Amino acid sequence: MKTGFIGTGAMGRPMILNLLAGGFEVYFHARRPEAAAPLVAAGAVACASPAEVARNAQIVFTIVTTGEDVEQVVFGAEGLAQGFSSGSVLVDMSTIPPGTARSIAARLAEMGVAMLDAPVSGGEVGAKAGTLAIMAGGAAEVLERVRPLLLSMGKTVVHIGGNGAGQVAKACNQMIMVAAIEACAEAFALAEKSGVDGARVLAALKGGSAGSRVLEVMGERMVKRDFAAGIEARLHHKDFRIVLNEAHALGTPLPVAAQVWQQLNALMASGLGREDTSSLLKVVESLGGI
Amino acid sequence: MKTGFIGTGAMGRPMILNLLAGGFEVYFHARRPEAAAPLVAAGAVACASPAEVARNAQIVFTIVTTGEDVEQVVFGAEGLAQGFSSGSVLVDMSTIPPGTARSIAARLAEMGVAMLDAPVSGGEVGAKAGTLAIMAGGAAEVLERVRPLLLSMGKTVVHIGGNGAGQVAKACNQMIMVAAIEACAEAFALAEKSGVDGARVLAALKGGSAGSRVLEVMGERMVKRDFAAGIEARLHHKDFRIVLNEAHALGTPLPVAAQVWQQLNALMASGLGREDTSSLLKVVESLGGI
Amino acid sequence: MKTGFIGTGAMGRPMILNLLAGGFEVYFHARRPEAAAPLVAAGAVACASPAEVARNAQIVFTIVTTGEDVEQVVFGAEGLAQGFSSGSVLVDMSTIPPGTARSIAARLAEMGVAMLDAPVSGGEVGAKAGTLAIMAGGAAEVLERVRPLLLSMGKTVVHIGGNGAGQVAKACNQMIMVAAIEACAEAFALAEKSGVDGARVLAALKGGSAGSRVLEVMGERMVKRDFAAGIEARLHHKDFRIVLNEAHALGTPLPVAAQVWQQLNALMASGLGREDTSSLLKVVESLGGI
Amino acid sequence: MKTGFIGTGAMGRPMILNLLAGGFEVYFHARRPEAAAPLVAAGAVACASPAEVARNAQIVFTIVTTGEDVEQVVFGAEGLAQGFSSGSVLVDMSTIPPGTARSIAARLAEMGVAMLDAPVSGGEVGAKAGTLAIMAGGAAEVLERVRPLLLSMGKTVVHIGGNGAGQVAKACNQMIMVAAIEACAEAFALAEKSGVDGARVLAALKGGSAGSRVLEVMGERMVKRDFAAGIEARLHHKDFRIVLNEAHALGTPLPVAAQVWQQLNALMASGLGREDTSSLLKVVESLGGI
Repeated sequence: MKTGFIGTGAMGRPMILNLLAGGFEVYFHARRPEAAAPLVAAGAVACASPAEVARNAQIVFTIVTTGEDVEQVVFGAEGLAQGFSSGSVLVDMSTIPPGTARSIAARLAEMGVAMLDAPVSGGEVGAKAGTLAIMAGGAAEVLERVRPLLLSMGKTVVHIGGNGAGQVAKACNQMIMVAAIEACAEAFALAEKSGVDGARVLAALKGGSAGSRVLEVMGERMVKRDFAAGIEARLHHKDFRIVLNEAHALGTPLPVAAQVWQQLNALMASGLGREDTSSLLKVVESLGGI
Repeated sequence: MKTGFIGTGAMGRPMILNLLAGGFEVYFHARRPEAAAPLVAAGAVACASPAEVARNAQIVFTIVTTGEDVEQVVFGAEGLAQGFSSGSVLVDMSTIPPGTARSIAARLAEMGVAMLDAPVSGGEVGAKAGTLAIMAGGAAEVLERVRPLLLSMGKTVVHIGGNGAGQVAKACNQMIMVAAIEACAEAFALAEKSGVDGARVLAALKGGSAGSRVLEVMGERMVKRDFAAGIEARLHHKDFRIVLNEAHALGTPLPVAAQVWQQLNALMASGLGREDTSSLLKVVESLGGI
Repeated sequence: MKTGFIGTGAMGRPMILNLLAGGFEVYFHARRPEAAAPLVAAGAVACASPAEVARNAQIVFTIVTTGEDVEQVVFGAEGLAQGFSSGSVLVDMSTIPPGTARSIAARLAEMGVAMLDAPVSGGEVGAKAGTLAIMAGGAAEVLERVRPLLLSMGKTVVHIGGNGAGQVAKACNQMIMVAAIEACAEAFALAEKSGVDGARVLAALKGGSAGSRVLEVMGERMVKRDFAAGIEARLHHKDFRIVLNEAHALGTPLPVAAQVWQQLNALMASGLGREDTSSLLKVVESLGGI
Repeated sequence: MKTGFIGTGAMGRPMILNLLAGGFEVYFHARRPEAAAPLVAAGAVACASPAEVARNAQIVFTIVTTGEDVEQVVFGAEGLAQGFSSGSVLVDMSTIPPGTARSIAARLAEMGVAMLDAPVSGGEVGAKAGTLAIMAGGAAEVLERVRPLLLSMGKTVVHIGGNGAGQVAKACNQMIMVAAIEACAEAFALAEKSGVDGARVLAALKGGSAGSRVLEVMGERMVKRDFAAGIEARLHHKDFRIVLNEAHALGTPLPVAAQVWQQLNALMASGLGREDTSSLLKVVESLGGI
């Protein structure tokens, strides 16, 4: 089965390899030739433009950075829209504002093209292992059509609701995850300032009622002061802009998320945007004169 | 082996039963006779006062509500201090300010009495099952002496550091846990306001990078709107006063914890203090006009 | 001297009348004929489109709601840009993001048209009285050219810096003002919950170190529970979106402004967007179970 | 008329001098002899203890730092209570928790001694000039009895309500004032990060709707980077602990005050506690990588 793919960054590359490993043909476009070479070597077919990708494959996946990026890839010059035909499907796996997802879907619907928003959780590790959690918004029958393809890239695929609902779920995921990271950072800073060994606090808390994936993974990084690995914090910074602007549009106050965002602003200002988000510990420490 | 116990509330009662089940003798004092009867029936020995408990048992456990309560039980009229002899050990399992724990320990040390602060995590469920997580502060050799007793009540016992360190770890636990509850509340309120089904969001997020005990347990309660079970929110409200006053004393800003505290204030003002802390969802919903 | 004007809302109408009273000719465009009639009666000249306004007057003022509105008025169909000639000047008095102001200025510069961002403070009362405070960004010589016109609408005109700087100053103004309103709301809610008469608190605080225009005007409204007058809160809500997105772009954490924004979200969710921003008191009261 | 005075710090000394200048006799006690000498030289009478002060004067003023300090001065060894007789009046001008004020008043009432809480606003400048704003809680007839004395130290005396009400008003004053300082700090940090001259922003905002005593005085200090003068920030830090604990006790969420407190924690951690509170600018700047 022929599939298309736009987005050959840290997430997209392993996802393409997993599609290939699943037995699917992959037509892709990469702006930078050096990104294309290893994918071509693995059996994917490079195209000159998104439009050409869309002409070759009815189902096209995108995973880029911002809502503007998705709009550019779809509706820009030589964009996917120029290659789509009636019955084509766009599956956008980027993390973008729910409203942008809905407006792209509406414009594509006028052309007879279906769209799913299907953002993912799990990071590079999950992308490589094919264990991403995928949250899908859009028509159920369209999701069923592409589910086998999604399952070659992820472990779970949950249909959340109509267009945009996948992005809402992703926003929820990011809020809960990064708030947990910040709470760990505040806790470890308090422990440190109290003269208490963070490693022992971590050992005591890990399996209990405060236990979480974040505590295990990010707490460990904080205790070991290993801030290099993981997801770049600047991406979470970007996501919180989406969350809080959505809250503004809906009129839903998010007092804790709003403060987490400000801590991410401080992290960016401190030049830590390319470190792991566990670097929030350094921000709290600097606030606390540690 | 003879042990003493003060505190026959929802946590203390099952902990006494677990000590008895572990083969230990338990001398206890209860202010209310109706609390005493079932414990006596189970084999524990009722005493007329904390002082009498301390005269009967060298190792005494306390689990009451506030720092003032502990001070009263230890140093008040007919308090433990009047019954302690050199070599006695007080193991306070209440959640109280680290500074109060340190000051009680210092006063007892002058009398030749050792103290451990050993607050617990796991709630009533953990107290009944004997699976509490115990975070201990105080001298390591004292902890080793009482460890077998602690292990009849809990599953893990971690030595965090000197006096007060157990309370610091407990403060960290509460911060992380209740911040996670509030983050879930904000996420589900956002989903709801977006017209998205919270149950599907929960299903999608549970196993992923935002996954946690809180999401599984409290997220479930939020989705089912079952706010009756669990730990009474007023206890978390009390704990956050401790956390933020400790932060004040140390000069460590805790921006997210400070907002969580305010949400707990709103919860109390809404008359929800005896419901489960997952009721924070109702607070966020009321803020958002839902 | 011929001037142009776009924006005939609550602010724009009295500003046009003040320009006329200052002896200037005013060419304006209003989408709704009922807005035009009283202005024509006062001596202003109605034009069929923004483009026609720009053809009649070299200096054009705009005061509309959002950055998108300004872009539409300038670059949309029959927009000002189609009527501007080299040497024309646009003075935008709307409150919009600094970045939008800079990008509009850059596009106009390519056409030989100068732009000032000149947002105002003082509300309808100030617009009618001609006592607005005007904060201007852009070239100093352009400002000097239009200063006499501005002084017919406002009392003070301060040159803040280059393009966008006026909007930065306005963002600062809104942050300080609405944070002060929220602080008053929290203070009066605390007093009320303590059983203390807010009117006496206001009397005691007014002239002291906590004294401010906000305390005098908005504090009075809170005490009298008169929330009808003043500036519609939804406009401040809009402004805080600008402030926090600017903070995001710059990486400057604004912890207090972020919380004020969330309170404005709650105000909107409570359906109070068309009341005066002193309605923040009702939001804090509802949080506090009052 | 004979008056007593306890508290010979930066506030108390000029207040004693103003009482003397008003023609009143002043009996005082100072722990440090060097504080006593200039007061004796000015005509005040030094006493060996608070008790001796209370034996010499029926109306005694106190202005010390914490609630514990007041309790010590009144009920400690050789405290005022030992010298008071039926009909004595204590006027406590310290800033302490409302609940502490109420409990001291209740204990004194049992001895036939009346108490007013009468905290002040205006700082050292106001204490020297005799222009303090005084907010009084307690019985109206007692206030009328001491009003002439208060008017020798302050310009305005407002009766807020019963015991503790003066402290509630003072808490409101501090919330509003320090929140305004923090809002200015955030605004100037945003301006700076935008490359905009803070002095011009200050000039534009001063007289407008964001205008306040804080903006004029503290804004000026921020722009001139003169953080030495004024009130020591550590005192505001102390006050915010009172405010937020009061909010906890009442169940009134104060989202903005809670964040201001955290910024004051950061200020303390940065070692700026003895600088003016306008140093909050440095805290926000450090957060923003400036």
